[in-house]
Amino acid sequence: MSLVVIGSVAYDGVQTPHGSVDRMLGGSCTYIALSASYFTPVSIVGVVGDDFAEEDVELLTSRKIGVEGLERVPGKTFFWKGVYSDDMNDRTTLVTDLNVFADFDPKLPEAYKTAPYLFLGNIQPTLQKGVRDQMTKARLVGGDTMNLWIDIARPALLETLRGWDFLLINDGEARMLSGESNLRKAAAKIMEMGPKILVIKRGEYGAILFTPDYHFIAPGYLLQQVFDPTGAGDCFAGGFMGYLASQGIDAADAGKHRMELFRAVIHGSVMGSFCCEQFGVDRFRTLTRQEIDARFQEFKDFTGF
Amino acid sequence: MSLVVIGSVAYDGVQTPHGSVDRMLGGSCTYIALSASYFTPVSIVGVVGDDFAEEDVELLTSRKIGVEGLERVPGKTFFWKGVYSDDMNDRTTLVTDLNVFADFDPKLPEAYKTAPYLFLGNIQPTLQKGVRDQMTKARLVGGDTMNLWIDIARPALLETLRGWDFLLINDGEARMLSGESNLRKAAAKIMEMGPKILVIKRGEYGAILFTPDYHFIAPGYLLQQVFDPTGAGDCFAGGFMGYLASQGIDAADAGKHRMELFRAVIHGSVMGSFCCEQFGVDRFRTLTRQEIDARFQEFKDFTGF
Repeated sequence: MSLVVIGSVAYDGVQTPHGSVDRMLGGSCTYIALSASYFTPVSIVGVVGDDFAEEDVELLTSRKIGVEGLERVPGKTFFWKGVYSDDMNDRTTLVTDLNVFADFDPKLPEAYKTAPYLFLGNIQPTLQKGVRDQMTKARLVGGDTMNLWIDIARPALLETLRGWDFLLINDGEARMLSGESNLRKAAAKIMEMGPKILVIKRGEYGAILFTPDYHFIAPGYLLQQVFDPTGAGDCFAGGFMGYLASQGIDAADAGKHRMELFRAVIHGSVMGSFCCEQFGVDRFRTLTRQEIDARFQEFKDFTGF
Repeated sequence: MSLVVIGSVAYDGVQTPHGSVDRMLGGSCTYIALSASYFTPVSIVGVVGDDFAEEDVELLTSRKIGVEGLERVPGKTFFWKGVYSDDMNDRTTLVTDLNVFADFDPKLPEAYKTAPYLFLGNIQPTLQKGVRDQMTKARLVGGDTMNLWIDIARPALLETLRGWDFLLINDGEARMLSGESNLRKAAAKIMEMGPKILVIKRGEYGAILFTPDYHFIAPGYLLQQVFDPTGAGDCFAGGFMGYLASQGIDAADAGKHRMELFRAVIHGSVMGSFCCEQFGVDRFRTLTRQEIDARFQEFKDFTGF
């Protein structure tokens, strides 16, 4: 069922041990939407400048992503540039030009407001809350945040989280948000903040899903080569949310859909792994649903005992 | 079936965020043997000084561990002391007094030489090879090594590894031994060195088993509290090898026993997790096979999808 995704649409410059690209399509909203589009119909809300290329819009629409909510304003599109360490486990930001994204004020097209699924990519918590409050018909709502908001906007973030059914964050952020270094204890504290489903991403080590009643641990896929990890976490989010939307999962009884939640985590891991195989969004130019299903089966093979 | 374990028997001083113990039973051989003893009959080969306490021998014999090969010589038992970081992911060695272990020359009792299973704990590679060469009837042989031997005794280590069916090392050691940062590539190189079964331990993130034909990824158990991680890797080894011995797995067709190998990794993870729940070997004073089987089932529950 229909999913609305909000977040950044950007251009990225990336340098990895395998090469560098000066400018390529990026942004959390872009990655989440492309990834989720393999599972469910997606529409996006974002803002770009007048430099945004028509071919980048076309990549989105080629995946049937609704772009009515992609606002174009005078100025330049958000630009980020970073360089990865040799083992790709660390990255250093070289440039963050917010440009038109600095004044992003998400405008929901009327047609979006009745969509049953909403994913709030990592933007300022009060903006996330503003969007969430307009989606009164949503059956399942969740999103992402980052260390910056945990640090400088904690009260607003806590108020925002109260309205979410699930939260996806990485392990460092989970520790920071909860003040607990042990992940089980951290998860218990975060679930008291609102979201009754919590996914803690652990980079190459996979992800853990927590509910108040059980947890599920998924390992990361072992790639022969990580080409470019940019966007992998967002592709995880897209696979996770896209799969739940495709299964029609409701917040009210999500906890009962244990296997669907577990499979959503695996689909997230599958999509994150594909993302790393080429620079930026390039893998999504050729990726097929058959390849996704085959990798899902691989996960079964290397985790079942 | 009967398993012989060789390695260090020691006293440890340990400081963790949960407390400190000045002197407690430790050593790789001790942890491996205690852990494996839940699955199969175990005999040990090691050396201790005249300060070695009778109650520590009794802990071993209470688990039916054969101590005929535990040599007592004049002098002091190997002593190690270390302190863990707040998150327990790092430790600093404060004291390493090799004492009688400095001249360890493993002497295999005659009765041991026909045992079908042999685990070579982390000692000097030439000593490991000497023992392995005496065990001409062994059906499955493997062991452990460390960064020190990879660094200062690489030729001897490579010669030793040629006679092993499996190798257990951690991810940092696998990268160091192979010269490859990507784990799949590292594993392929290491399997060319001899062992056709490779287990790469990843601390709290679990372990990966590789054979030339497939791999298996097991997550680490999420403990509510890690009390003391000392010995967890050795307990993993004991659970892994003990389970394989209990199933009568042969090196000749080990690769065909895919599910047994996968379950051996899970039993290793189960035993490593119990080890962390109390200081030193204390958890093994009360641990039962029923608790082990229950945790094995937990692994099924939080990894199956």
